[in-house]
Amino acid sequence: MKKIVLLGATGSIGTQTIDVVKHHRDEFQIVAIAAGNNIAKLEELLVDLPDVHTISVAQVDAAKQLQEKYPQYTVLYGEEGLKALAQLEDYDIFVNAIVGFRGLVPTLCAIENKRTIALANKETLVAGGVIVKDALKKHGVTLYPIDSEHSAIFQCLQGNAMKDVSRLIVTASGGSFRHLEREQLHDVTPAQALKHPNWNMGGRITIDSATMMNKGFEVIEAHYLFDLPYDKIDVLIHEESIIHSMVEYQDHAIIAQLGSADMRIPIQYALSYPNRLEMHNDEPFNFLKYPTLHFREASYERYPLLALAYEVGRKEGNLGAIMNAADEMAVELFLKGKISFLDIETSIIKAVKELPYIEHPTLEDLLQSDAQARVFVKNLWEGDCE
Amino acid sequence: MKKIVLLGATGSIGTQTIDVVKHHRDEFQIVAIAAGNNIAKLEELLVDLPDVHTISVAQVDAAKQLQEKYPQYTVLYGEEGLKALAQLEDYDIFVNAIVGFRGLVPTLCAIENKRTIALANKETLVAGGVIVKDALKKHGVTLYPIDSEHSAIFQCLQGNAMKDVSRLIVTASGGSFRHLEREQLHDVTPAQALKHPNWNMGGRITIDSATMMNKGFEVIEAHYLFDLPYDKIDVLIHEESIIHSMVEYQDHAIIAQLGSADMRIPIQYALSYPNRLEMHNDEPFNFLKYPTLHFREASYERYPLLALAYEVGRKEGNLGAIMNAADEMAVELFLKGKISFLDIETSIIKAVKELPYIEHPTLEDLLQSDAQARVFVKNLWEGDCE
Repeated sequence: MKKIVLLGATGSIGTQTIDVVKHHRDEFQIVAIAAGNNIAKLEELLVDLPDVHTISVAQVDAAKQLQEKYPQYTVLYGEEGLKALAQLEDYDIFVNAIVGFRGLVPTLCAIENKRTIALANKETLVAGGVIVKDALKKHGVTLYPIDSEHSAIFQCLQGNAMKDVSRLIVTASGGSFRHLEREQLHDVTPAQALKHPNWNMGGRITIDSATMMNKGFEVIEAHYLFDLPYDKIDVLIHEESIIHSMVEYQDHAIIAQLGSADMRIPIQYALSYPNRLEMHNDEPFNFLKYPTLHFREASYERYPLLALAYEVGRKEGNLGAIMNAADEMAVELFLKGKISFLDIETSIIKAVKELPYIEHPTLEDLLQSDAQARVFVKNLWEGDCE
Repeated sequence: MKKIVLLGATGSIGTQTIDVVKHHRDEFQIVAIAAGNNIAKLEELLVDLPDVHTISVAQVDAAKQLQEKYPQYTVLYGEEGLKALAQLEDYDIFVNAIVGFRGLVPTLCAIENKRTIALANKETLVAGGVIVKDALKKHGVTLYPIDSEHSAIFQCLQGNAMKDVSRLIVTASGGSFRHLEREQLHDVTPAQALKHPNWNMGGRITIDSATMMNKGFEVIEAHYLFDLPYDKIDVLIHEESIIHSMVEYQDHAIIAQLGSADMRIPIQYALSYPNRLEMHNDEPFNFLKYPTLHFREASYERYPLLALAYEVGRKEGNLGAIMNAADEMAVELFLKGKISFLDIETSIIKAVKELPYIEHPTLEDLLQSDAQARVFVKNLWEGDCE
């Protein structure tokens, strides 16, 4: 029996993690969960999670109300609540499905607590890659990816030696505007950008998919997860998103992981590794429904944020934290209609070039770079926004 | 250093095996080789193989001439020569790249000699599956596939447990007439049938590809190689032959092996397993050159020999030997212009239905069934042929 602490329980990855656990109660138990502000959803989820003893929510008021209503739980809140969950004694796997930079510190606490990490939080590696890698090494902890691309690569590496890997091929759907040229992007609206051709995801990741910033983040994550230099990590546009990513070996054999875009597959694999458990409530993938798969180049000219991510990844330091924070803020401004789609790129590129570079940042430095970058992007457009 | 005995040295797989060995002389040595009647080619190959001490050819006369010309080698001939090579003491891997039923007995000798088998000879498993499997078990010997489909499956199984496999997906190019309906097959000629859309292979395998008999053989081979029931082995038409085959697991994840149709990849993997060595003289696979991949159903109505192979595989006994021999003879008659393309199907189906079924055949029984089936098919069309 593997005992799980789950952060981000009410989000898409969180609810799918709970779905996996509910179908394999002889394998997994959730003992503690954290949610943000969606208390109604949290209460609904708790009904089916008999082993939970500790919960954490974003706000103190909600925590107090929950504690009165459910005296059987220990109810915590805020950043300290997330850290306390990571520091619990009676669990094996820390599933971090929080969105955003605030996922970093809880991951570090769980690593110090020597728990296996199952990671959906991109920012942990994009912003904190070097620090997280050092912590994993120091505490002898294993981190499994939950992202579909990184899970695919992880699956394709099984039974092979890293020394034989010649290249990772991260596939990209191309996002909402994949059939538009750059000249056509000037006047696109948030509503258009939010229509992802392949699936429904949160607002930020859908925009990040259209700008390829998300794929850039994934390249950086892949670098830290698999310890490969950036010139061995390629991006390939594959519109159908059926091949989730690939590994090419030095004998020119390529191994790919593919199938439905069902996030329960990577979630379950991270939890059940090295075994694979049955998947419920769904048909296996049927090629006859996807008779044609397409591949094309992910051009740096078309997607300058992808190029930027390689540059940022190679320079390391605090640049990942700056790039991520600038993106969070720029996407927020775009979705509020305050800046144009192409201004997202301008914001991030400017933030990365103009904010002070720190080659060997501490965690404190990263937190500060994150805050600085948000202010920088906000100020950049202030004249326009008023 | 792995020492190799190579049968079928002058054929396509044989020469590519030698190419692999020549590029990895610190890993592999060929100590003995067998060829058929292409003595000039054999002599040419020997120039680059300094570690060979024993050779075998088909005919006694050629063997005598070679022995005089090359006193440094021990020169053998015929079936006994192949068996003697298999029984040598100073080698590790037995590469069987002979075409046809006569590859079976040498494989069995090498298994008894407790050598690792790298198998390109289909008939070993199609005709002799049960006997070979028993021998492998009895002598604790491992057999690695060299066929691109089975190597792909073997690669996709690495790092996973067989209990988690839900399905093998063997891909098929569809062969020369893949864009024709059955009604259009009545008058096709050997010249048309020999034009394989994807690659140049020997005559028989090209025809077997057009009838899908070859894919049927591969289904049977997969059954014996991976010890899975026939209802877990599917065939899927994939015209570009880039995905070489796949494995679906019970969590619905599919792992695929893909890349160029370069047989040196599966040959080298069988020799270097579990490592992968560098591949020479070739660019890695480029998706931009294959921007579109297609998939469609391999229908039993369109390809009755594929359906027959499943039936034969399930019934076991001597039916694999009959089916294979009937096919060898029917293809020969078709290529000589003595029967039509659709007569190939008729020949094989009749042979399988009408010849005596033996549930638990000995090796002797298989040899006899093989001979009977050839005569049966020849007699079937005798009136027409004269």
